[in-house]
Amino acid sequence: MDHGHPAAKINLRNDYSEGAHPRLLQALAMASTEVNRGYGLDVHSERASALIRDRLGRDADVHFLAGGTQTNLVALAAFLRPHEAVIAPASGHIATHETGAIEASGHKVLTVATPDGKLSPELIQPCVDGHAGEHMVKPRMVYISNTTEWGTLYSALELQALGAFCRSRGLLLYVDGARLASALTTPGNDVDLALLSTEADAFYIGGTKNGALLGEALVIVNPALRTDFRHVIKQRGAMLAKGMVVGAQFEALFEDGLYFVLATHANVMAEQLREMLQQAGVPLAVDSPSNQVFPMLPNALVERLQQYVEFETWERRGDGTTVIRLMTSWATPESAIEAFAGIFPALYREGRAAMAASQAQGA
Amino acid sequence: MDHGHPAAKINLRNDYSEGAHPRLLQALAMASTEVNRGYGLDVHSERASALIRDRLGRDADVHFLAGGTQTNLVALAAFLRPHEAVIAPASGHIATHETGAIEASGHKVLTVATPDGKLSPELIQPCVDGHAGEHMVKPRMVYISNTTEWGTLYSALELQALGAFCRSRGLLLYVDGARLASALTTPGNDVDLALLSTEADAFYIGGTKNGALLGEALVIVNPALRTDFRHVIKQRGAMLAKGMVVGAQFEALFEDGLYFVLATHANVMAEQLREMLQQAGVPLAVDSPSNQVFPMLPNALVERLQQYVEFETWERRGDGTTVIRLMTSWATPESAIEAFAGIFPALYREGRAAMAASQAQGA
Amino acid sequence: MDHGHPAAKINLRNDYSEGAHPRLLQALAMASTEVNRGYGLDVHSERASALIRDRLGRDADVHFLAGGTQTNLVALAAFLRPHEAVIAPASGHIATHETGAIEASGHKVLTVATPDGKLSPELIQPCVDGHAGEHMVKPRMVYISNTTEWGTLYSALELQALGAFCRSRGLLLYVDGARLASALTTPGNDVDLALLSTEADAFYIGGTKNGALLGEALVIVNPALRTDFRHVIKQRGAMLAKGMVVGAQFEALFEDGLYFVLATHANVMAEQLREMLQQAGVPLAVDSPSNQVFPMLPNALVERLQQYVEFETWERRGDGTTVIRLMTSWATPESAIEAFAGIFPALYREGRAAMAASQAQGA
Amino acid sequence: MDHGHPAAKINLRNDYSEGAHPRLLQALAMASTEVNRGYGLDVHSERASALIRDRLGRDADVHFLAGGTQTNLVALAAFLRPHEAVIAPASGHIATHETGAIEASGHKVLTVATPDGKLSPELIQPCVDGHAGEHMVKPRMVYISNTTEWGTLYSALELQALGAFCRSRGLLLYVDGARLASALTTPGNDVDLALLSTEADAFYIGGTKNGALLGEALVIVNPALRTDFRHVIKQRGAMLAKGMVVGAQFEALFEDGLYFVLATHANVMAEQLREMLQQAGVPLAVDSPSNQVFPMLPNALVERLQQYVEFETWERRGDGTTVIRLMTSWATPESAIEAFAGIFPALYREGRAAMAASQAQGA
Repeated sequence: MDHGHPAAKINLRNDYSEGAHPRLLQALAMASTEVNRGYGLDVHSERASALIRDRLGRDADVHFLAGGTQTNLVALAAFLRPHEAVIAPASGHIATHETGAIEASGHKVLTVATPDGKLSPELIQPCVDGHAGEHMVKPRMVYISNTTEWGTLYSALELQALGAFCRSRGLLLYVDGARLASALTTPGNDVDLALLSTEADAFYIGGTKNGALLGEALVIVNPALRTDFRHVIKQRGAMLAKGMVVGAQFEALFEDGLYFVLATHANVMAEQLREMLQQAGVPLAVDSPSNQVFPMLPNALVERLQQYVEFETWERRGDGTTVIRLMTSWATPESAIEAFAGIFPALYREGRAAMAASQAQGA
Repeated sequence: MDHGHPAAKINLRNDYSEGAHPRLLQALAMASTEVNRGYGLDVHSERASALIRDRLGRDADVHFLAGGTQTNLVALAAFLRPHEAVIAPASGHIATHETGAIEASGHKVLTVATPDGKLSPELIQPCVDGHAGEHMVKPRMVYISNTTEWGTLYSALELQALGAFCRSRGLLLYVDGARLASALTTPGNDVDLALLSTEADAFYIGGTKNGALLGEALVIVNPALRTDFRHVIKQRGAMLAKGMVVGAQFEALFEDGLYFVLATHANVMAEQLREMLQQAGVPLAVDSPSNQVFPMLPNALVERLQQYVEFETWERRGDGTTVIRLMTSWATPESAIEAFAGIFPALYREGRAAMAASQAQGA
Repeated sequence: MDHGHPAAKINLRNDYSEGAHPRLLQALAMASTEVNRGYGLDVHSERASALIRDRLGRDADVHFLAGGTQTNLVALAAFLRPHEAVIAPASGHIATHETGAIEASGHKVLTVATPDGKLSPELIQPCVDGHAGEHMVKPRMVYISNTTEWGTLYSALELQALGAFCRSRGLLLYVDGARLASALTTPGNDVDLALLSTEADAFYIGGTKNGALLGEALVIVNPALRTDFRHVIKQRGAMLAKGMVVGAQFEALFEDGLYFVLATHANVMAEQLREMLQQAGVPLAVDSPSNQVFPMLPNALVERLQQYVEFETWERRGDGTTVIRLMTSWATPESAIEAFAGIFPALYREGRAAMAASQAQGA
Repeated sequence: MDHGHPAAKINLRNDYSEGAHPRLLQALAMASTEVNRGYGLDVHSERASALIRDRLGRDADVHFLAGGTQTNLVALAAFLRPHEAVIAPASGHIATHETGAIEASGHKVLTVATPDGKLSPELIQPCVDGHAGEHMVKPRMVYISNTTEWGTLYSALELQALGAFCRSRGLLLYVDGARLASALTTPGNDVDLALLSTEADAFYIGGTKNGALLGEALVIVNPALRTDFRHVIKQRGAMLAKGMVVGAQFEALFEDGLYFVLATHANVMAEQLREMLQQAGVPLAVDSPSNQVFPMLPNALVERLQQYVEFETWERRGDGTTVIRLMTSWATPESAIEAFAGIFPALYREGRAAMAASQAQGA
């Protein structure tokens, strides 16, 4: 979780510490001088929807919501019958960090252990097979995120395999795209919004973590899931009176590709971090090509590093090391990476030496 | 509900068609250049909370949420046990225009008919007495709004009577303040935030309808209701990652009284409307001193007026008249009132004449 | 509600004070010596389902549940999406005496005032028309009971009109049959199970109030409502491990018409009460031809009568009278009616005289 | 799950295939001739409550409900706030076989892997520690069952350790006693109802699986959990109009110890099974001293055995064996055990030989 971080420290904590990109603020200022229809029926929301649909190459309903947990819970509340459950990776956001929002809507989250936060037909199959009959919930949806909580991403082939599996088993495929921007702009990525809309029944395009003040664009591709969706938005308290607040930001993000520019910057900054860590010989807990980097550090180094850098502690391992998460954002200045590179190698050598000494003593 | 309204028309539709006051946009732009803690733990939210608490003269928890329906549902979900119900006026927002958000949280809304949208001990008593035993829900909370859906407001005496009644009957008192700004700045009002915090267990201070892009400040006075409230905010999808988005706006609204200045403007504009209507001899459906005006017009006039003015149709009466709602906002220009005054009297005379002719024919 | 009642008093309190008819107890004793499949998949439940289907003349799913509130909540939880609401008479059981069970499943109950507990297209229409758009719940089901809470019943014509209206408006029709036995055996009734299954999408056949220890048979006629229904039964805690407990009782009730014999007895006993009251000149609050009788008595008489008779007090009127409910059951002995007839007329004359004297004094 | 089983087969499927013990049926027949108050306020329910309280040696509220899933969901719905979660063994009934009933009430079930279905402070601790802050559900209750789904049971020391841990961590302890009768009558057991009531905040005494037609007795020891509990029973559709149906059965079970006699019989029958299996050299998957026995059999034997015996298949292992569950009940005749003993050894030798041959072939 978040703790205070004086500006003096190097900020690599997350991708939502900074506000909005200036062009989004400008769009909001412009729209604020207008008279707009309420509840998401304004011209900005409509235009932003159209811009997104253009990239799909197919029809879809687009709804603008405030945040990721909200989007997930509204979607699942609308899509599932009471006894239907969603299958998620054990590390999935809905399974771990949404305070039981899905359960509060009445649905069980079935979790599957994964090495890297990603699901596959092989991982899902036993969960589906293991839930038969009326004494168990009925798996009805597969939830994945792209990128995942571990910064990993799905290839086109992997998504197609998941999509085909879900269709063959009567499962809906839902993609949490809080960090979709990062996924789509990672070097080597071969997924685009069009492909996503071919495989997923619904997905959302995250704005909050890519330069917006707030906002996610939920794309409902499957026509059967569209009926009365605005009723459910309203019922869950998720319909903004001034819907243009999100619409205008997405309009600015998608009218000329700013959405991808911002994410690319975050990815480039992360790549610089990875390279620097590699040169310093630091092992990474997972091979994540996106804006999240998970170095494994000697325990003692973690605390020391916190004096200079803002970051999240991810996982304490048994072997004297701790996985930390370094995260870049659309707003991470190159100077932050340079500053980090300036202090880290020496600290790391120190930490390694201390660990070796301590282990020698222990043995 | 809202329909499209070309800028050419005079806009008296509602108080959320316009965006944010420039000073709030400026505050957001400033905060956007900073690194802030997430989830409402930022310095702006903290300062805004402190500014609000200062006006209460007592301790309270302040939480910033996105909109009114959301605030109501999060609060009631947190405050009530499953079998506990809330008593509301039949015209109350939670009873009519929130798509069953309270019921979706599991709670029944018990409604009481009122002449003007206001509850009193006398109106509540029979509802409380009529719900005894385990075969009925247990009334546990009284919900009022100030101003009400009919633009009426509570006096200090009325609030004190309600507060005393609730305390004596083990009921919580909750005040929906979507338009609290309008109430507190109406001439003749004798309620302030301090008094509100003495009588209500919790209430919210509306921002969306008084110059903010979005945002309501929920004030929880009763200590027993505060435990784990942030868990419930998160669970209902109502915790903004960039909580400063609302915090910074409330900071701007409360640091030097802008909140009251904006509402006063809306009220003054409405008062000019009321005076004009009175001079034209138009009866009002209810005596509302705030930013909502409810003239009763000949049915035929309503459609004609819609060619020039944006407004809501409220209630068709059996006597050939229709109640419409004219609403002003913090952003309503004086020129709009003047334009309305320029066209209305002639249209009204015409409409009255047509109605008289039609009634003569009918007789 | 229920209060203690020594056996010495004449019992006209309700139709669930007595246990089960001996033939049902015998059926349970027989089935108890067998080995049966669990969870309602036993031969008794299957045969009981077949016996009921035979009377419908059409295919339907039949599920056996424990009680009326449970049946209503399981059915509505399964049939409605989150934003969909049910329209009920204001006196309807789901609206008044189920402790918000429907709301606890997330759905709003929209109520319509009625003179006699019965709904009609004319009464429903305004409620449907008044709920449009995503800011309001969407009316999706009409709930009626037969007989109603006021002991009144629907004619075939009335049911057909309701059915046609519902089909034309995309509404489901659901019939609460807690006292369906009484309705179907009332002299003058022209509804049977076959007609009910033509007009209603689902309904239940009450057992608890007609000679069973517990148990209601839910009949789902509309195929679209049948999917995964057993999942929802289980999820709501309504699936009995020993499902034969209800199945065997319904088998006994329906294998040779005992269900109708028992209800006929209750109706005959009530008719004797009505005749006696009529001869004594007692006005009835509503013209109910079934096993519920609602005399209006001088207030002072009510307390006096409670010394001799067990009954429910229904409604205190402003004119010095109180409506009480006298109810007969399958087990009401003729001697109880005779005993009542033996003491009532004198008490009533006394009570009338006292009321007249008191009014004279008051004038 | 359950499948059909002609009477000819030996029945070792479960402990709810048979109906009620004759003395319970007799009690129901007697009570059926009386006039009783409804909704669990009858004299039988009151006396049964008193009989149970006598065995606790302390004050407690006792409520009679219909089944285990229902009891669990009503209790947790009443005891937990929306964001509060329950910790259960991964094999726990609420986690696996209740179709998400707890989630349908809004609460997350946090699961902990166990070797034998039992929880301990050591197993629970990491789950509690791992859930901090408002982005996660708040563990508030520990759910265990005694006996467990694996037929294992808790010692007094183990229960006391759990109780102490829960109290020290602000956790409620809830015991699912669907098969509590079996636990309390197992040789070597040192737990009784008094001790249970000292350690658990609430627990239920199972009737359905120990000779009743239906019914569980929920005992609420912790006074803070008692408020308005009957409201929640009613709201969840769990209040029987004829509450005496369960009350009279529990009266019969507890008035002279029949409850323990019935369970003892089941345990003795299971012990005979275990001895026979041991003599035949069959390994057991878990050391369960109660009425459930889990032999590991060659896969091919399982199908063959099903021709003669009714039982559940529990778990297919990778080594060519399958764990099956043999279960005895209060009604299992000694002749069934003898019949099983008559056919099993030869079948087992055959099966072992076939498996050996097949493995030799495979190698």
